[in-house]
Amino acid sequence: MSNKNFSFELIKTDKQTGARLGVVHTPHGDIPTPIYMPVGTQACVKAMTSHEMDELGAKIILSNTYHLHLRPGEDLIDRAGGLHDFMCWDKPVLTDSGGFQVFSLAALRKITEEGVSFRSHLDGSKRFISPEVSMDIQQKLGSDIAMAFDVCSAYPCDHRTAEEAMHRTHRWAERCKQHHTRKDQALFGIVQGAFYKDLRIESAKTLADMDFPGYGIGGLSVGEPKPVMYEMLEEIEPFMPKEKPRYLMGVGSPDCFVEGVLRGVDMFDCVLATRIARNGTVFTRHGRLVIRNAEYAEDFRPLEDDCDCYTCRHYSRAYIRHLLKVGEITGARLTSIHNLRFLIRMMEDIRQAILEDRFGDYRKEFYERYDMTRNF
Amino acid sequence: MSNKNFSFELIKTDKQTGARLGVVHTPHGDIPTPIYMPVGTQACVKAMTSHEMDELGAKIILSNTYHLHLRPGEDLIDRAGGLHDFMCWDKPVLTDSGGFQVFSLAALRKITEEGVSFRSHLDGSKRFISPEVSMDIQQKLGSDIAMAFDVCSAYPCDHRTAEEAMHRTHRWAERCKQHHTRKDQALFGIVQGAFYKDLRIESAKTLADMDFPGYGIGGLSVGEPKPVMYEMLEEIEPFMPKEKPRYLMGVGSPDCFVEGVLRGVDMFDCVLATRIARNGTVFTRHGRLVIRNAEYAEDFRPLEDDCDCYTCRHYSRAYIRHLLKVGEITGARLTSIHNLRFLIRMMEDIRQAILEDRFGDYRKEFYERYDMTRNF
Repeated sequence: MSNKNFSFELIKTDKQTGARLGVVHTPHGDIPTPIYMPVGTQACVKAMTSHEMDELGAKIILSNTYHLHLRPGEDLIDRAGGLHDFMCWDKPVLTDSGGFQVFSLAALRKITEEGVSFRSHLDGSKRFISPEVSMDIQQKLGSDIAMAFDVCSAYPCDHRTAEEAMHRTHRWAERCKQHHTRKDQALFGIVQGAFYKDLRIESAKTLADMDFPGYGIGGLSVGEPKPVMYEMLEEIEPFMPKEKPRYLMGVGSPDCFVEGVLRGVDMFDCVLATRIARNGTVFTRHGRLVIRNAEYAEDFRPLEDDCDCYTCRHYSRAYIRHLLKVGEITGARLTSIHNLRFLIRMMEDIRQAILEDRFGDYRKEFYERYDMTRNF
Repeated sequence: MSNKNFSFELIKTDKQTGARLGVVHTPHGDIPTPIYMPVGTQACVKAMTSHEMDELGAKIILSNTYHLHLRPGEDLIDRAGGLHDFMCWDKPVLTDSGGFQVFSLAALRKITEEGVSFRSHLDGSKRFISPEVSMDIQQKLGSDIAMAFDVCSAYPCDHRTAEEAMHRTHRWAERCKQHHTRKDQALFGIVQGAFYKDLRIESAKTLADMDFPGYGIGGLSVGEPKPVMYEMLEEIEPFMPKEKPRYLMGVGSPDCFVEGVLRGVDMFDCVLATRIARNGTVFTRHGRLVIRNAEYAEDFRPLEDDCDCYTCRHYSRAYIRHLLKVGEITGARLTSIHNLRFLIRMMEDIRQAILEDRFGDYRKEFYERYDMTRNF
């Protein structure tokens, strides 16, 4: 699919490492890469407003097809004028395809060549999503970037199962492409192949031949050790088209950003930042901090000294801990603001480092200060 | 207690009704009256940040001595520099005395002349609050206005019980006054007397003689019909010092604002706005709206057409309903913002009406447009 509303511009590669700096052009504006995409599963980044996301420096938000299909339904969002109008966010939106979510339903779903039958996790009602249905939903949602409906494999997974899932993913990618007609929406293919190098490479090549405007790398971060994920990224990198953006799906911890960017990834998304925030854990440059712990009860310092977020400019660890301990919504808000800003700012720093050809140094400094034992 | 940091200025009374317009001067700034004081029970207005409260036009926030005493404790807040610093709010703060909260514990508390023994609703631990303890706590919290530790009566309540509670309240008020030394904090007495005119009048007179810088009217809105509350306000009005602010405690629905102001009340507080907001009910000029109802599923209008709040300027009823239905924190935030702004703005309008000697007209117009059958 070619689309004059959408393009990727590779600005440069880092001289130290080959990490990529680029821009994705979309109908709702430009996305500098590498980029972290905060997740607004149900048309809302949890605890946040759209305007706050803008203030934090978010350039694109991800939303979930599966969840929105169930509630409030794509027809309602279509009548609202699409996701952007519905959630009052005028910057780019990416929707996933629902493939990973229905895969996660495990016992509740049945996969055939036609598509996936499943029961809603909410009311048990019978549902069906096929490549065509996923395209119909995403086209109604009106995101700037839609994802192909794929088949995700579990970890671990035998070679034969992984191969079958991959081939079906490729057939479904073709069906998605055939069914996708919306001109102001780009459709990304998704590389699968589980944890087998031969399959990953075959998948990357096959999808490259199908000429999608961008590519997801799916089926990683599903329970495997991080080095296994990194190895897969290294294997497929030479076979991913250089002129297309590469999106490592569902990955969003600080160390994974560094290692993903090092291996040529341009886009990341993950609910980690907001999920751990609500549980009272925050990112810092020195590792994670469980702010609910008693040791912070009378700690009147900000979550992080040199952080520029609203939370750190105004509130103390002691106050935030108090709010979390007594169950105040505002506590979850303040930690969410910090964690989102932390990851967004980290990507700003990474882009600056690549621009200045010092991403290798950045990575070295990252590990010098970041306590991986506090990366639970 | 006289206090050069604190004073009340009666600017004028409405020519149509006698409603009062004034200003309360405090160490943290001026409070125009009549005023609605949003409640930040645990040093936080639920779902809101301090800066948002400022943007909404809040001029003072109430916080609860009982809750803060239990968590995080007044000593911690004292070490944080007081409530203002702790919660990052540089405008006035009023703390209640804990009297109403321990009264509400019912079976968990025992009242003697010395004070109230009770068990924490959190962990069952034994606690004791007396007039002196309440003063100690509130002085450590560092609010601009502290309230005397009083004895609240239930509704209904026999005359003898009400009379005993009232006399104890007066003795305790004297003890509070004796024990209160903080110079940058004003201490308000609280008029009690349940639903007996003679007792209410006696209480108003007795406390007036004690010369507090301001007066709470306690023990109302505890289950009695609204006309009964209004009757009590009318009875005591002539005996309340004109040159002191009058605070009707725990009352905060739109119609009660109108009727309270009409009867000479200057200050109001209530959790109603934020509590119903989280449950999906919002105020409008035409009555309450249960935004969770199915009829709003595809209603793309704002909560209220002519509202100037952040929520109404950006989001639709359909979107807010969606967020509430799927359990997003942001839904509760958006309705809270609207309800708080609604009450704050209503008081702004009331002050303007009094300034222009047309509060009688304001009241008439209020009832013409406000559907009391939707005031559940």
